[in-house]
Amino acid sequence: MKHKFTNDYSSLCHPLILKDLSDIATEQNVAYGLDKHSLNAESLIKKTFNSPNAKVYFLSGGTMTNLLFISYALKPYEAVIALETGHINVHETGAVESTGHKIITVKGNNGKIYPNDILDALKIYKDEHMVKPRMVYISNSTEIGTIYSKKELLDLSKVCKENNLYFYIDGARLASALTSKYNDVEPELLGKVCDAFYVGGAKNGLLLGEALVINNPSLQKDFRYHIKNKGAMISKGYLIGAVFESAFKNNLYFDIAKQTNEVADYLKEGLAKLNVNMLESPTNQIFATFDKDFANELIKEYGLELWEDKGNELVVRFVVSFTTKKSDVDDLLNFVKNK
Amino acid sequence: MKHKFTNDYSSLCHPLILKDLSDIATEQNVAYGLDKHSLNAESLIKKTFNSPNAKVYFLSGGTMTNLLFISYALKPYEAVIALETGHINVHETGAVESTGHKIITVKGNNGKIYPNDILDALKIYKDEHMVKPRMVYISNSTEIGTIYSKKELLDLSKVCKENNLYFYIDGARLASALTSKYNDVEPELLGKVCDAFYVGGAKNGLLLGEALVINNPSLQKDFRYHIKNKGAMISKGYLIGAVFESAFKNNLYFDIAKQTNEVADYLKEGLAKLNVNMLESPTNQIFATFDKDFANELIKEYGLELWEDKGNELVVRFVVSFTTKKSDVDDLLNFVKNK
Amino acid sequence: MKHKFTNDYSSLCHPLILKDLSDIATEQNVAYGLDKHSLNAESLIKKTFNSPNAKVYFLSGGTMTNLLFISYALKPYEAVIALETGHINVHETGAVESTGHKIITVKGNNGKIYPNDILDALKIYKDEHMVKPRMVYISNSTEIGTIYSKKELLDLSKVCKENNLYFYIDGARLASALTSKYNDVEPELLGKVCDAFYVGGAKNGLLLGEALVINNPSLQKDFRYHIKNKGAMISKGYLIGAVFESAFKNNLYFDIAKQTNEVADYLKEGLAKLNVNMLESPTNQIFATFDKDFANELIKEYGLELWEDKGNELVVRFVVSFTTKKSDVDDLLNFVKNK
Amino acid sequence: MKHKFTNDYSSLCHPLILKDLSDIATEQNVAYGLDKHSLNAESLIKKTFNSPNAKVYFLSGGTMTNLLFISYALKPYEAVIALETGHINVHETGAVESTGHKIITVKGNNGKIYPNDILDALKIYKDEHMVKPRMVYISNSTEIGTIYSKKELLDLSKVCKENNLYFYIDGARLASALTSKYNDVEPELLGKVCDAFYVGGAKNGLLLGEALVINNPSLQKDFRYHIKNKGAMISKGYLIGAVFESAFKNNLYFDIAKQTNEVADYLKEGLAKLNVNMLESPTNQIFATFDKDFANELIKEYGLELWEDKGNELVVRFVVSFTTKKSDVDDLLNFVKNK
Repeated sequence: MKHKFTNDYSSLCHPLILKDLSDIATEQNVAYGLDKHSLNAESLIKKTFNSPNAKVYFLSGGTMTNLLFISYALKPYEAVIALETGHINVHETGAVESTGHKIITVKGNNGKIYPNDILDALKIYKDEHMVKPRMVYISNSTEIGTIYSKKELLDLSKVCKENNLYFYIDGARLASALTSKYNDVEPELLGKVCDAFYVGGAKNGLLLGEALVINNPSLQKDFRYHIKNKGAMISKGYLIGAVFESAFKNNLYFDIAKQTNEVADYLKEGLAKLNVNMLESPTNQIFATFDKDFANELIKEYGLELWEDKGNELVVRFVVSFTTKKSDVDDLLNFVKNK
Repeated sequence: MKHKFTNDYSSLCHPLILKDLSDIATEQNVAYGLDKHSLNAESLIKKTFNSPNAKVYFLSGGTMTNLLFISYALKPYEAVIALETGHINVHETGAVESTGHKIITVKGNNGKIYPNDILDALKIYKDEHMVKPRMVYISNSTEIGTIYSKKELLDLSKVCKENNLYFYIDGARLASALTSKYNDVEPELLGKVCDAFYVGGAKNGLLLGEALVINNPSLQKDFRYHIKNKGAMISKGYLIGAVFESAFKNNLYFDIAKQTNEVADYLKEGLAKLNVNMLESPTNQIFATFDKDFANELIKEYGLELWEDKGNELVVRFVVSFTTKKSDVDDLLNFVKNK
Repeated sequence: MKHKFTNDYSSLCHPLILKDLSDIATEQNVAYGLDKHSLNAESLIKKTFNSPNAKVYFLSGGTMTNLLFISYALKPYEAVIALETGHINVHETGAVESTGHKIITVKGNNGKIYPNDILDALKIYKDEHMVKPRMVYISNSTEIGTIYSKKELLDLSKVCKENNLYFYIDGARLASALTSKYNDVEPELLGKVCDAFYVGGAKNGLLLGEALVINNPSLQKDFRYHIKNKGAMISKGYLIGAVFESAFKNNLYFDIAKQTNEVADYLKEGLAKLNVNMLESPTNQIFATFDKDFANELIKEYGLELWEDKGNELVVRFVVSFTTKKSDVDDLLNFVKNK
Repeated sequence: MKHKFTNDYSSLCHPLILKDLSDIATEQNVAYGLDKHSLNAESLIKKTFNSPNAKVYFLSGGTMTNLLFISYALKPYEAVIALETGHINVHETGAVESTGHKIITVKGNNGKIYPNDILDALKIYKDEHMVKPRMVYISNSTEIGTIYSKKELLDLSKVCKENNLYFYIDGARLASALTSKYNDVEPELLGKVCDAFYVGGAKNGLLLGEALVINNPSLQKDFRYHIKNKGAMISKGYLIGAVFESAFKNNLYFDIAKQTNEVADYLKEGLAKLNVNMLESPTNQIFATFDKDFANELIKEYGLELWEDKGNELVVRFVVSFTTKKSDVDDLLNFVKNK
């Protein structure tokens, strides 16, 4: 059967991580995330992202992580600013609103929010008959695979601080962003530039889980109560802790992403040689345009997601994951070549 | 280091299940729980519990499972009846209330709710200035390790039907209940007696997860939307699906529980011989009373949970899990004997 | 002091209604809206809008009315479609989201939603990773004072029925819409065309309150529980009941609106003669453009709301209310003439 | 028709207040509670209760007032301690839970909470698997008409401060408490002893409304946003403001309550002479026991609420209101005498 390019969460786990889990299968651990593996993983993550005062919480999914942090930080009448196309606004089935909060949407550009988007929103939302903006939410890499530069993150951070807005970064694909060859953001910047961010696991070859890093000490108090209150504290917390410990103890987390990006680059180069029209794409998601009939063949053969219907042409998404081999790419390129 | 009798979720996973996961580590699967492993697990569970029209949802924890089903089934002004000591009332940090619903508490007896408890509550809650009772929640086995008989479940089911109340069973320790030598409830009864129940995984040697079984077809529509809305849909849904597939394909689920109960019985017999005062305890939790000083020694050595402080005496809880061996019990019994 | 054209809720109450209240000041009535005045008002409203199977609920404000009906009708993962500029989306401080529901916004035209807006939204929201559209919300008259024609309402009703969407009409200024000389909607249409609507009181000279009319019997069950659950059931329910009884027993409700519209038309004609640039405006809100300096004078003298800043020019809003006399308009027109 | 003793909110309004409203019927006022009447009423209330740094918010009902303050002050996982019989726990249809918060119940004594009730609860709720107690809620007068002494309030205040708990007093019948001849609490104590309280209007002859007084400045920020977010900001805010202005400008608020208490005392004395068995009752609610048949006659004739069914005997509640005259009491006493 052909390798699918559907997404980066269709395969269970990098074998090295499963191996580490097997080694502790019958070990007894403290429950609810207070175990030695979680503590070690927390310590490794704080070091990696240079946030000595951070607290790290290991959670079972991205939507849950977003709703937990946002609903913790905001008062009932406060809102979070996000892109119209932001994951929390479109693809989380109203999870943020489910906790009582409005999302204020801005248009942005190239999948990214810029300071002016925020300032424009602040001009509108200014009295008690409207929600009060209190946080900015971005993703890095973004929904369309683009990445923020160091300067862009610093600019956003500045405008947030000046306007009493928390700055929160969804890192579902943070690994892919930070290991892109176009990236100029050091991991250490994440510890400083924002109030909180999460280190995505599931989309980077980890068994499951995301690590929420709350840099801002004023947003840490009783956060574990909040996790439990929203149903997100799992009894075997050491499971996710051990997964992240395994990923961070020897740089495996970034190695996986780097290798995935390299395979993605190999695919991009191959498609470029075949004159396929692609969007800018520095990470492991590639958006390419084909005529309708062939696009539908690709979708069928390679499990692609249809991204945009332009009538005669379709934009489809290729996602490269930790199980994608260069030979899988070669097979795909041959298919395109022989269309 | 001594084996701890703290709880039944301090060890990661039964090795046979981890082995099955390793076999599919790099296999590509459909995401969000629509994969072949989840479908197979659903099918096995429907057969085991004889509920051909059920839908089964694999979730990451018990609190989440409870809040999801309860908040789905109830209108905003409707409430769930539970024991004062019920898990949802005491140990879930207000998760049910977090979704907007009140818990109506009843006293019950021996850790169990009886029809009269429900009828008494219905006499009180009868106009629009009070919440409207719409569901009964029980646990089997209960918070204190007791179990419901077949007749007791049928009686509750009847009073629920007669009074337009949904009947929901928290099965965090269902395996222990159903394999107790005092049990007369066939698994097949679960498919009929209630509107929904969950098959607990984490406390029975599974890596993680619970399987929510909704028997009542009128409570299944769009339930997956609800899961996502509450942040509980994990991308790698096939992880929990595969865990349950592994547990149910060869009866491992009940084998683990049966063996655990046997070790628990061995412990009970040993303690009885030493004239230790114990509560009735048909499952893997044992509540025993010791004088204060020795109880504190036990707590320290064996990681026990203090259950009740009676002044000169303390009630402590021993929990036997899938990793507890008879030799661990022997060590404990020796410690008690030589006090 | 000059009469202000700020809004239509700056004066307490039409004297005839206050008179009726005085007559029953010390009468004893059943509480919580089950009194004879509320029942009579309900009956009058059902007759006026030709909805014999409706239930009518008297509530203290428009935002509350909207959040009550929407949160009652929707499951947690369901959403309401509204204009980007819709009152629930902009000017209710996230009240709908506070009850857990997302608002899906559409652009519309001239302050109104059209069937294609709805169909376009339905094409996007179609799987469980997004909220599920389940209701359409419009206002009549709209936020910019325009009104729906009979055909437009019937078309919306049809597309809603065909797509399993509830249709709900915010009638904060329904009286102004139905008595506009450009209106072709009979009050009786309201009883048929939608699942629910509300009859606005506060903005039409009534002391306070709105009357929510739920036409659809499947959305009436236990609604009073829901009112209480959201804190909106006032003990002296007969107060709002008596206010609406007074307004509907002799057609006063429409008489007030008709007279207000006539004064508004008088103002429009006067401004037109002075060549003032106005938006289409069939009701009691008039949006007019002036050069910046004079607009600011008007804002200061007449308490106008600034509607839009176009740089050199400002759009301001004049609102005519039940206390606005033709002589007040003459004074205003003189001010404009002599600028 | 006989005067009913059903409750203290069955008559619309004291005539002096309605007279004041008539005087401003067509006056133009700023909307949403920022008008001169509301500001004046706020000032009068701050002076009366000696809370110069308080903010006062005029709201339309008691349940709404409770849910607003509680949901504002608590984080999602925090809970409020109340009596099992507390109004928020029993008679508000889950309004507090509807905002996501659990109510921790304590037994208390004679309708009142004592410091030990609080300390006992704090011993239980102490880790993140349970909600976190953060507020104490009491009513004065209580649900059974008893009142707190100055010492009792000071003791509660102290235990709250020492344990980081907000102290909130539901004053639905505060007027009756403060004008009881058994009362030793000066109004000025309310400004100091608690973080917030509300001054009940509807049950003391006012047209509608309650005045929430937030003494604690750290709980005032953006509270108006919260009011709007929960649907409770009415456009004609000056209505409730003017009602309270009228009630407080000449001491009418306390005059009404004093006279009502006097009539209640007259009734108590009359019943005592007839050897009727009554509970302690320092305010306008009287709980009396009669044999079943006669109790049912009373219920029918005088609209009484059945309070408790003791089998052969029933406890019924007489409530005296601002419209109850001594002649109404004489009629009732004659009825009892001639049984």
